[in-house]
Amino acid sequence: MTGNTLDPYSDRYAHRTHGLAVSEIRALFAVANRPEVVSLAGGMPYTAALPLDAVGSMLGELVARNGATVLQYCAGQGDVRLRELICEVMAEEAITGASSDDVVITVGSQQALDLISRIFLDPGDVVLAEGPSYVGALGTFAAAEAEVVHVPLDSDGLVPAALEAALEALRAAGRQAKFLYTVPNFHNPAGVTLAVERRAQIVELCERYDVLIIEDNPYGLLGFDGQTRPALKSLAPERVVYLGSFSKTFASGVRVGWAYAPSAIRDKLVLLSESQILCPPMLSQLAVAEYLSTQPWREQVKTFRELYRERRDALLDGLDALMPPGCTWTKPDGGFYVWLTLPEGLDAKVMQPRGIAERVAYVPGIGFYADGSGQREMRLSYCFPTPDRIREGVRRLAGVVEQELELRATFLSTEPAAAKVRWPRGSAPGPELA
Amino acid sequence: MTGNTLDPYSDRYAHRTHGLAVSEIRALFAVANRPEVVSLAGGMPYTAALPLDAVGSMLGELVARNGATVLQYCAGQGDVRLRELICEVMAEEAITGASSDDVVITVGSQQALDLISRIFLDPGDVVLAEGPSYVGALGTFAAAEAEVVHVPLDSDGLVPAALEAALEALRAAGRQAKFLYTVPNFHNPAGVTLAVERRAQIVELCERYDVLIIEDNPYGLLGFDGQTRPALKSLAPERVVYLGSFSKTFASGVRVGWAYAPSAIRDKLVLLSESQILCPPMLSQLAVAEYLSTQPWREQVKTFRELYRERRDALLDGLDALMPPGCTWTKPDGGFYVWLTLPEGLDAKVMQPRGIAERVAYVPGIGFYADGSGQREMRLSYCFPTPDRIREGVRRLAGVVEQELELRATFLSTEPAAAKVRWPRGSAPGPELA
Repeated sequence: MTGNTLDPYSDRYAHRTHGLAVSEIRALFAVANRPEVVSLAGGMPYTAALPLDAVGSMLGELVARNGATVLQYCAGQGDVRLRELICEVMAEEAITGASSDDVVITVGSQQALDLISRIFLDPGDVVLAEGPSYVGALGTFAAAEAEVVHVPLDSDGLVPAALEAALEALRAAGRQAKFLYTVPNFHNPAGVTLAVERRAQIVELCERYDVLIIEDNPYGLLGFDGQTRPALKSLAPERVVYLGSFSKTFASGVRVGWAYAPSAIRDKLVLLSESQILCPPMLSQLAVAEYLSTQPWREQVKTFRELYRERRDALLDGLDALMPPGCTWTKPDGGFYVWLTLPEGLDAKVMQPRGIAERVAYVPGIGFYADGSGQREMRLSYCFPTPDRIREGVRRLAGVVEQELELRATFLSTEPAAAKVRWPRGSAPGPELA
Repeated sequence: MTGNTLDPYSDRYAHRTHGLAVSEIRALFAVANRPEVVSLAGGMPYTAALPLDAVGSMLGELVARNGATVLQYCAGQGDVRLRELICEVMAEEAITGASSDDVVITVGSQQALDLISRIFLDPGDVVLAEGPSYVGALGTFAAAEAEVVHVPLDSDGLVPAALEAALEALRAAGRQAKFLYTVPNFHNPAGVTLAVERRAQIVELCERYDVLIIEDNPYGLLGFDGQTRPALKSLAPERVVYLGSFSKTFASGVRVGWAYAPSAIRDKLVLLSESQILCPPMLSQLAVAEYLSTQPWREQVKTFRELYRERRDALLDGLDALMPPGCTWTKPDGGFYVWLTLPEGLDAKVMQPRGIAERVAYVPGIGFYADGSGQREMRLSYCFPTPDRIREGVRRLAGVVEQELELRATFLSTEPAAAKVRWPRGSAPGPELA
């Protein structure tokens, strides 16, 4: 799509435009959405679990009663009543005493990520991010022509020693990261959560190396034990820009997110958002404000948690029962995602067409890295399909992986022993398969 | 707000961020919105004229019936049914045979302007735009660090000879404009409309000098004679990116606009919009699609036209009756705005605090130019206040202008004849006032 010599406008684009590329996820959606395919690919919340009649009545009454305001422009920072309610929502994760003055409403937290990228990133600037990381964040960093340095995760989230090593390596190279981008809770795509005892360590490292933190927290209220963990923002308010969203706790179709930022950064966010969209949609904002004020939203979050826990269980049980040896995966305590690693020698991207042929979709791991790694990895989402469909999806996926392993074993055994086998993207066959 | 040495983050921002500035309009809103002030400043549509009960019922039913989709993510390009309906709307202005494939839904046409700026503009690039021009467009061009070259308007809109001179001057300087940005119908802020016979001339010039056209048309259906004029897009489809909006024909609070672009540019728009917001709000999109499908939207546009015509008449009649000699203003045939020029020697920005003290607000002209001109000019909006309030506002404004003229006459008569009077921003006193 880019660099196409048939594009008659190609000599007119800005420099940055030539780097625009289709994400791995987007290219997949057309096929993944066919009804016969079990999609473990998308991150769509299960909006059918909302009380649609009640939300419909609420909206109808809101417009009939207050439509001239609901259907009007508003200030670029967003509706003040909603910003006050957001402060109450953030208090659930230990952010107390927040001022609505420092909250900026955005079109999903994606817009906040884009604003942050534009405010801070010049071409060539360094961003630290978990490896893997949220594909939409990587997209905004790429659009800003920044360089992403990945920091490894383990089952307790971002690894402090690895972060310190990355910070030290940058310092040794005379470079400074503009910020650390992190998803502490129920990570997308990795499914892991930053251990509470690591949170102070991460913040301390960022203080010591004077690096801002962008804390992206769309899933924090979706912990299956019903507990929340303290936000990094609560530990170092002036060091952290906190991003929240109603996409997973209420409805993604309203596109309401927010940034809660130190005042000087908030000023920039407001100015740039006005330049980008004038103001966020009042219809969406007042729908959320009304929902938070008049509907039992905490009970609905509980309903979502229980629904997603049942689906997570269906996925993990299926993986335990069916996946061939050599596969490993994370065990999420909340959120939407499991991160699966294939046996050595397999490539999730290469395997993808066979998956689609067998009517199961996932997202190959390489889309979640800026550096081309993640070939053996894939993201599995359990948020949208029913448990039965999830079990069927895992059955199909396990079959595909088994076929790939058999094919590979056959291929290896018929190759002349001395021949150098070339695997795509440098992922050499592992010794256990030789 | 920018360059503040108290900003602890000031050494971290991207280069472009240091140029972010508060618009003339934004700085004004806090005071202009006080109830005792007659605001001729804002461009807010009169949403109270919508059938709010009917729109409320429609929305309530839409969510109750189809909520799981209404409250869900969608494709980045926007809902296909809405895109098809938009093609019908564009047919009202001679754009026939449009394909919904080439329509991209945006968060108001402001987002489309931002996307266009990011796709095409490198720092230092040249944009041609009317002088004055829409302040929100100038904001996106400034955020992209582009240079705006203004082309004069007259009562028939953009002047072809002036455009040719600007194109020729750029060519002589070895430069090429990335695009011409134009609002052909009921211009914001100038209130004038591009004469039909000029449209082919403008397009021909842009063909000859190989310059793209960004045609921004939020007001085209709001002509007071009920007639529409052919869009530039209809004259040269591959030369023009057309921007539309429902903010003035339905509701600004849904933030639904669109770009209708040549396919290669559409691809870039979709990719960049996904990076910026993932997708536009489904709630807003399906609200508009349902409104267009089930409500008498053309009759509602007629209602708006008649309402705004009555207010335009109130404003023009008031100006005719009350404004002191030396003031001139445009006579809009549609849309929201009158552009007024003060007598020589007055400065609309300098006069603004006196206007607020007398409880009338307008927008000083300099915000609508990228080059600091427009000191004697101001934008007067008649879209939101009732006719009685408009008449009262004009009475107050006329009083303020008269006081300024008297003050100035007194000041001049008491100055030593030989003294060089320094007027702000180089606007010398005119001979008729000496």
